[in-house]
Amino acid sequence: MPERPNRIKETTVIQVKDVRLERPIMVEGLPGVGHVGKLVAEHMVEELNAEKIIEIYSPHFPPQVLVADDGTVKLVRNEVYADQKHNLLLLIGDYQSVTSEGHYELTEVYLDIVERYGAKRIYTLGGYGIGQLIDKPRVLGAANKPELVDEMKKYGVEFKEKEPGGGIIGASGLILGLGKLRGIEAVCLMGETSGYLVDPKSAQAVLRVLSKILGIDIDMSALEKRAKDMEKIVAKLREMEKAHAKPITAEEDLRYIG
Amino acid sequence: MPERPNRIKETTVIQVKDVRLERPIMVEGLPGVGHVGKLVAEHMVEELNAEKIIEIYSPHFPPQVLVADDGTVKLVRNEVYADQKHNLLLLIGDYQSVTSEGHYELTEVYLDIVERYGAKRIYTLGGYGIGQLIDKPRVLGAANKPELVDEMKKYGVEFKEKEPGGGIIGASGLILGLGKLRGIEAVCLMGETSGYLVDPKSAQAVLRVLSKILGIDIDMSALEKRAKDMEKIVAKLREMEKAHAKPITAEEDLRYIG
Amino acid sequence: MPERPNRIKETTVIQVKDVRLERPIMVEGLPGVGHVGKLVAEHMVEELNAEKIIEIYSPHFPPQVLVADDGTVKLVRNEVYADQKHNLLLLIGDYQSVTSEGHYELTEVYLDIVERYGAKRIYTLGGYGIGQLIDKPRVLGAANKPELVDEMKKYGVEFKEKEPGGGIIGASGLILGLGKLRGIEAVCLMGETSGYLVDPKSAQAVLRVLSKILGIDIDMSALEKRAKDMEKIVAKLREMEKAHAKPITAEEDLRYIG
Amino acid sequence: MPERPNRIKETTVIQVKDVRLERPIMVEGLPGVGHVGKLVAEHMVEELNAEKIIEIYSPHFPPQVLVADDGTVKLVRNEVYADQKHNLLLLIGDYQSVTSEGHYELTEVYLDIVERYGAKRIYTLGGYGIGQLIDKPRVLGAANKPELVDEMKKYGVEFKEKEPGGGIIGASGLILGLGKLRGIEAVCLMGETSGYLVDPKSAQAVLRVLSKILGIDIDMSALEKRAKDMEKIVAKLREMEKAHAKPITAEEDLRYIG
Repeated sequence: MPERPNRIKETTVIQVKDVRLERPIMVEGLPGVGHVGKLVAEHMVEELNAEKIIEIYSPHFPPQVLVADDGTVKLVRNEVYADQKHNLLLLIGDYQSVTSEGHYELTEVYLDIVERYGAKRIYTLGGYGIGQLIDKPRVLGAANKPELVDEMKKYGVEFKEKEPGGGIIGASGLILGLGKLRGIEAVCLMGETSGYLVDPKSAQAVLRVLSKILGIDIDMSALEKRAKDMEKIVAKLREMEKAHAKPITAEEDLRYIG
Repeated sequence: MPERPNRIKETTVIQVKDVRLERPIMVEGLPGVGHVGKLVAEHMVEELNAEKIIEIYSPHFPPQVLVADDGTVKLVRNEVYADQKHNLLLLIGDYQSVTSEGHYELTEVYLDIVERYGAKRIYTLGGYGIGQLIDKPRVLGAANKPELVDEMKKYGVEFKEKEPGGGIIGASGLILGLGKLRGIEAVCLMGETSGYLVDPKSAQAVLRVLSKILGIDIDMSALEKRAKDMEKIVAKLREMEKAHAKPITAEEDLRYIG
Repeated sequence: MPERPNRIKETTVIQVKDVRLERPIMVEGLPGVGHVGKLVAEHMVEELNAEKIIEIYSPHFPPQVLVADDGTVKLVRNEVYADQKHNLLLLIGDYQSVTSEGHYELTEVYLDIVERYGAKRIYTLGGYGIGQLIDKPRVLGAANKPELVDEMKKYGVEFKEKEPGGGIIGASGLILGLGKLRGIEAVCLMGETSGYLVDPKSAQAVLRVLSKILGIDIDMSALEKRAKDMEKIVAKLREMEKAHAKPITAEEDLRYIG
Repeated sequence: MPERPNRIKETTVIQVKDVRLERPIMVEGLPGVGHVGKLVAEHMVEELNAEKIIEIYSPHFPPQVLVADDGTVKLVRNEVYADQKHNLLLLIGDYQSVTSEGHYELTEVYLDIVERYGAKRIYTLGGYGIGQLIDKPRVLGAANKPELVDEMKKYGVEFKEKEPGGGIIGASGLILGLGKLRGIEAVCLMGETSGYLVDPKSAQAVLRVLSKILGIDIDMSALEKRAKDMEKIVAKLREMEKAHAKPITAEEDLRYIG
């Protein structure tokens, strides 16, 4: 069944396994600010034992392979996992598109998959960078239908005027925007984060809200452990900062520590 | 009637309402230097109660949604409004193309709309950055037919040798250039502006000239209020400048204040 | 006869006049290092009273119009002029492509024109930046056939090992490379230049060699005057340099003075 | 037989000579970190007297010609050489793609050639930048099949967890990733290198391993001489560094010395 294409000349969807789902919910967690969405969605794949059903390759991804610990390579890609028990589709991946046009193309491909499975709603996950370290990250929301805003508020999702000010960039935003044109319901959940570091604490905040919405109990201990490790790193960085009397600005170097 | 496309794989025009216009005039005010054109055209949409008739989506726009104050999103787009009373088409939008080729593609789409409505002339609006704050902004012009230059001079539009030196970049220029190849009359009106800040005063200068040309009386009080607010910000910036004995150079940070 | 295309969705060639030429020579002088080639070719168009026969538009050019002194605009383009008396085609323009792929596309279009007119050879003109002001610029050469190298040496064109080290970038180089694949003879003549300033003196050196090659007598007084004006600017810059005890490095700001 | 295409509008493969090979091995050595792969593959072409059988042109390469010492030009390209005696295909070139999409397109073209010749395996060569000068460069590996990892270990290729951390970018990586989708075996061999300089010593290390794998004896004296010349340059740089008490950071200027 796994059909193998001959060439990746355009965005290519490979169905590696088939499953039956009953009007599932899709959760998107691709890399982005603080890797918040990615942390949540990958955690869910792991904890829910979801199985990979789709691989997406594209010349809009970087021309790159990743090397696993056993020395074998994997072409960078996006993947869709299915959790039949909870009727979920989970979209994760190594990268988002490197071009503007690629973002549009890939998002339309995601939405094609959503329609093929008759999914009734999408939750896109991301981080909302506020430029400083934060102790109690809120979860901000945006939606592509007014009714969804009211529904989300019940779960503690906050909707603030002027936030996020710059809009939502990348797949998490486009899925809402392009989904709206197709009449597909979609909500974006954004965990507040500094924007400087991979942020498992913000991911926990998002996952807590999302579990409530989905009515699924998900073990968070792995994410909690990562958050604690990260706090140690942050504490160390703060000490170094004091010692050097210089604010943390090396955004590029720190963003993906952890 | 509002036809919804399935996918935004290329620049897509959605007709959301149909109206009859008698050889209308089109006014373009997309984002640009000092947001002068955008301020004028959006002010006109508001004051003239124009109705939205067209939405334009494109993978040449940034992959982004904007979040409204009610928490719902809008995919970045361009829009055409119609004012039947004054026989006007107004082209506004969140962004211009992010690629060179996209600029050409989108401008041809604008011109297709112009031809579909049999519009007899286009006024494109913009700012002309002069690198310093200015008290009495002039309105400079350019046109795609010599007769138009003479006509415009009567309304106080100034045409100076070597100005604007670098030509006109983006939709405001391309509409004139590509329009000329199709035989469509077009004039560009540029308000002088520092180039550092959103400039409602420059927008007022442009709107004053444009109202005279169109023979339409437009209430300017909203724009005037914005200009006064902006002047306060500028005064504050100038004080800060004196205090720090350093010229305003943080172009990026200041450009969109206001 | 001037056919007008409806839309510039791809590189478009508009024949504005037709002429008969007998196996002409083409001379290319598009903008580049020190604008050496552009200065020479535009000088030839003027002095030889060549007439414009072709306009080339392309979405690979910047999305820009230029404003003439009379206030009318011109979409940025390339142009081919014909000098029937001397059996010449002259290729000039406002810009080269802004993308790599556009360079290939446009060069193939230039070569199509060359083949349509049965041109027997192309001379591409450019500057060779050496990073410092120079009194007696040499003219370096490159060719797409060994026999052409020997022929050019007779006219004082210099061929040095390792020069130009970085190869030849843009139309001047691609015409030789892509021309070779089509079996079209082509030579590149490069005037030494600082690379910091528009350089009419280097242009004079190139034109002197090219006139000899073509056996055409061309009045150089206009170019000479520009060179003298430029020398005054350079002298002034050198004084300023001494006064500030700082070398001229503001490449971007100085390159196009003059 | 050498068919000449008329235009390079897309990636174009020109077969300049035909040879028969019996399930050959392909070795790829395009430019990259420290030019390690390029040094090895070009050395093999020379020492094995391989003959050029294919030229690959593409608008995804820079718009550039290189000038040979005799004054003639060559359009930048990739080339495939054949060594019938050792049943080898060698892929070398002046540049890799300048765009992401071009990398995918070109790699698929390389794999088409591999399939056309029924090649049974590909070795891609590169450098692994570690940010400091190194005396005894190791050879790290990656492969697109677990069995290949075990096989390579026998030849001293090292496979380390988390190395290379950032994955493998460009043709050397994509050939493994896209090859895997076509079921073509491929191994990447990376010589450790500073990343600042062309590194013939790292190339020697890679060639030593590769010769063992291929069971071919290749004279290394030319590469050894280059390595010694380079060592003198490095020694000089180190002296200069001491004198100036400043670390070597001018990466751009030094990378291609040698």
